[in-house]
Amino acid sequence: MNLDNYIASIPDYPIEGVLFRDVTPLMGDGEAFHYACQKFVDFAREVGAEVVVGPESRGFIFGCPVAYELGIGFVPARKPNKLPRETVSFEYALEYGTNKMEMHKDAIKPGQKVLVVDDLLATGGTIAAANKLIETLGGEVVGCAFLIELEDLKGREKLEGYKVLSLLKY
Amino acid sequence: MNLDNYIASIPDYPIEGVLFRDVTPLMGDGEAFHYACQKFVDFAREVGAEVVVGPESRGFIFGCPVAYELGIGFVPARKPNKLPRETVSFEYALEYGTNKMEMHKDAIKPGQKVLVVDDLLATGGTIAAANKLIETLGGEVVGCAFLIELEDLKGREKLEGYKVLSLLKY
Repeated sequence: MNLDNYIASIPDYPIEGVLFRDVTPLMGDGEAFHYACQKFVDFAREVGAEVVVGPESRGFIFGCPVAYELGIGFVPARKPNKLPRETVSFEYALEYGTNKMEMHKDAIKPGQKVLVVDDLLATGGTIAAANKLIETLGGEVVGCAFLIELEDLKGREKLEGYKVLSLLKY
Repeated sequence: MNLDNYIASIPDYPIEGVLFRDVTPLMGDGEAFHYACQKFVDFAREVGAEVVVGPESRGFIFGCPVAYELGIGFVPARKPNKLPRETVSFEYALEYGTNKMEMHKDAIKPGQKVLVVDDLLATGGTIAAANKLIETLGGEVVGCAFLIELEDLKGREKLEGYKVLSLLKY
């Protein structure tokens, strides 16, 4: 299956000069969505994931089916002030702007093998922040999986030493 | 399985006087998360769902595994200015405050049978907005499924005529 057929490319969104890769057509197609999630499931099995972390909010979309299929937990990495209990937080740079990411302090058990799933690897800021939080809590990041990798933005350089899977490269 | 054991109750969050039901412990437990999603899958089969809609962002967490398992599409109902292509939108009242919801105009095909999945049925404003958008696009809402229903807030009254499933009632 050629997943590229299910990605819409939107010029100048959200700001001028950015070509936004819209994954909603892929999510909206049952066969394509299942196929992409299944690839993440295979990767999760290969790296021995015991829990899935997904950054808000498109990481939820691709991470939750993986957790469900494997019968393991899903942990959201969220924007500030969305999690009601005690958190750890980390500030990071985005492709455009900055952001802060939070996880519940009890979300990851020390030594747990964690797979991080997100829709997009751009500059790698989001995923590096997630990895940082997971490791702060004593977890081991055994893999990072993305639907799309924007190679020009060199996010993979921020993930040296991690196993990385991307299903589509632009 | 008693799902209630996996819900944390947080007093005065996000504002004083609100008892917030935190579903992250349930999501973080592989067995409980799979069990809850499986209940939604059974309901989706029963009502003949052809596509799943989930409101941002906890609706993504419980809706996406259902779409994945059944091999059907998932459509996000998002906060304003998150969707890059042409949208329909609807403004609605929340348990605290107001919000606006958007869906892509091409997200639902006329006549499609739609299951709406969210974590929480409170006042019903969010889910009524999602139903409104789906129907505006010509879809048929064949069911609304929630992890938690807060019965005091009478959200079910806003869903008269719809098939409603809630796994936990408070």
